[in-house]
Amino acid sequence: MSERTVIALGGNAISPAGKAGTAPEQTANLHRAMAQVAELVAEGYTDLVLTHGNGPQVGNVLIKNDLARDVVPPVPLDWCVAQTQATIGFTIANTLSFELQQRGIERPVVPVVSRVLVSRDDPAFQEPTKPIGPYLNDPVEIARRRDAGEDLVEVEGRGWRRVVPSPRPLACVDRPAVDLLLADGAIVIANGGGGIPVVDDGDGPLHGIEAVIDKDLAGSLLAKEIGAATFAILTDVPGVAVAYGTPDQRWLEEVSVEELRGYEVAGEFTVGSMAPKVAAVREFVDRSGGRGMVAALDDARDALHGTAGTRVIRGHDG
Amino acid sequence: MSERTVIALGGNAISPAGKAGTAPEQTANLHRAMAQVAELVAEGYTDLVLTHGNGPQVGNVLIKNDLARDVVPPVPLDWCVAQTQATIGFTIANTLSFELQQRGIERPVVPVVSRVLVSRDDPAFQEPTKPIGPYLNDPVEIARRRDAGEDLVEVEGRGWRRVVPSPRPLACVDRPAVDLLLADGAIVIANGGGGIPVVDDGDGPLHGIEAVIDKDLAGSLLAKEIGAATFAILTDVPGVAVAYGTPDQRWLEEVSVEELRGYEVAGEFTVGSMAPKVAAVREFVDRSGGRGMVAALDDARDALHGTAGTRVIRGHDG
Repeated sequence: MSERTVIALGGNAISPAGKAGTAPEQTANLHRAMAQVAELVAEGYTDLVLTHGNGPQVGNVLIKNDLARDVVPPVPLDWCVAQTQATIGFTIANTLSFELQQRGIERPVVPVVSRVLVSRDDPAFQEPTKPIGPYLNDPVEIARRRDAGEDLVEVEGRGWRRVVPSPRPLACVDRPAVDLLLADGAIVIANGGGGIPVVDDGDGPLHGIEAVIDKDLAGSLLAKEIGAATFAILTDVPGVAVAYGTPDQRWLEEVSVEELRGYEVAGEFTVGSMAPKVAAVREFVDRSGGRGMVAALDDARDALHGTAGTRVIRGHDG
Repeated sequence: MSERTVIALGGNAISPAGKAGTAPEQTANLHRAMAQVAELVAEGYTDLVLTHGNGPQVGNVLIKNDLARDVVPPVPLDWCVAQTQATIGFTIANTLSFELQQRGIERPVVPVVSRVLVSRDDPAFQEPTKPIGPYLNDPVEIARRRDAGEDLVEVEGRGWRRVVPSPRPLACVDRPAVDLLLADGAIVIANGGGGIPVVDDGDGPLHGIEAVIDKDLAGSLLAKEIGAATFAILTDVPGVAVAYGTPDQRWLEEVSVEELRGYEVAGEFTVGSMAPKVAAVREFVDRSGGRGMVAALDDARDALHGTAGTRVIRGHDG
């Protein structure tokens, strides 16, 4: 029951409509999610780390940067990620602490400003693929951004959109702080928005770089590094399906790493949506031997009990 | 030597010109300050908390909020403070960790997203006094802000400026996390920008409120709460002076709480500049019996050794 658990909350826990919304809206959405999380803690899942997405939030920060660029210097993308870690972490701390207190539980909830190491040599820096920020349709604005060095791609029917590198997370720089806080009995929020991407040039401090790390991969890495028994991605669908959206659609209940890999290779999962979730869970199970799962946020308890969602396990030869 | 120490860094450590500047400029400034802090750690001041101002940084965030308000919802002032805690904390973590490593010291540097409790009944909410954000001269913009409920004051020759409440800090909500991390040997960054102001309405989660807490008062409170032996405000002047800027100017070396209180009552210290620093240090010494000091950042070591800056001590009847 008190086995170490890492939960990755999909963006829908904060922004169901895919838009960040106002601060009260984000707070209300997170509060609902934290009521679910508090139930898990009350049930004994006390050795707990939460991580979360930040797509709509970082998009808003980027829009502000752009619109104010002639008045105040824009801050780099890594700072934007840091900003969203703080606002989402602050809101989680307030709402989860309250929900815990309602259940008679006093336990520090601590958001850690989390850096994640990436490599300058990661091929993602040659080929940015992660869409970020608003759709653009004004030719002048599109030209300005191109001149400023941004990579843009056209999305049929919607307009142009900035893409940034999404390098692989290599190490959780602030893992020592997470370890210490967990040992002290705190509930930790870490690697929000995939973590602040940093590189090590070897001759100076670690520093940020213009990139966004996939939050599920960053959560998977953290779960492995801190020796979690379970890595659970909670989202807005009941689990992982094959033949998704066809008459043959089938939800997977328990699936081995090998079987899942086969489905991945066969292209069963949507790029940028279910595919990174599946990869993140599979990598965790494969590397650590723990159990991975993808489930709906509302089914979190049942999923941890093994009666809902998709559970990924090592195969017999694992 | 390893006595618990809280250091409050003035805004000048980040933004000497009073403007936030670009991210590389802020980083370079903080790096210089962290080289000084690393010297203190190397000398044995290992039980250390840093706090910092955020005036120019939060000003920039507010400008972005305003300029983008028709496109994305502005976030409240408490979120803006949180955002600056993350960007400044991230930069301190990178640069201080590097400077420590250069000195052979491996120690986690952990920025804590810090909430500070204030009261809705604080008289500051009836009479906002803390200037924040840009000077305004456009009558349309001034009228729009008045209509939106902002309090504005005119500053002779510069224009109108928003003022917000600056309530007294009552309790450091995230002190448990600071305590745990210090006990674990981490260097902690806390209460940045005075902390995120929150109120407790008693029937729901703590939540943010539109206000800014004085960072020196918030540092003083934290120093008392965590039982620090020393609370040191490091700034850009050599210490506290009486008759400042006159031919009779005199720097104070060692001064009792009672003597200092007398100077305060006599109006020796500039409102919004040296006065809050003096009050913060005096309150710490008065409440805790520790030692307080105000010194130049570059004199930090000498100040802690008692050979530079202004030291505040309890009087003989204290």
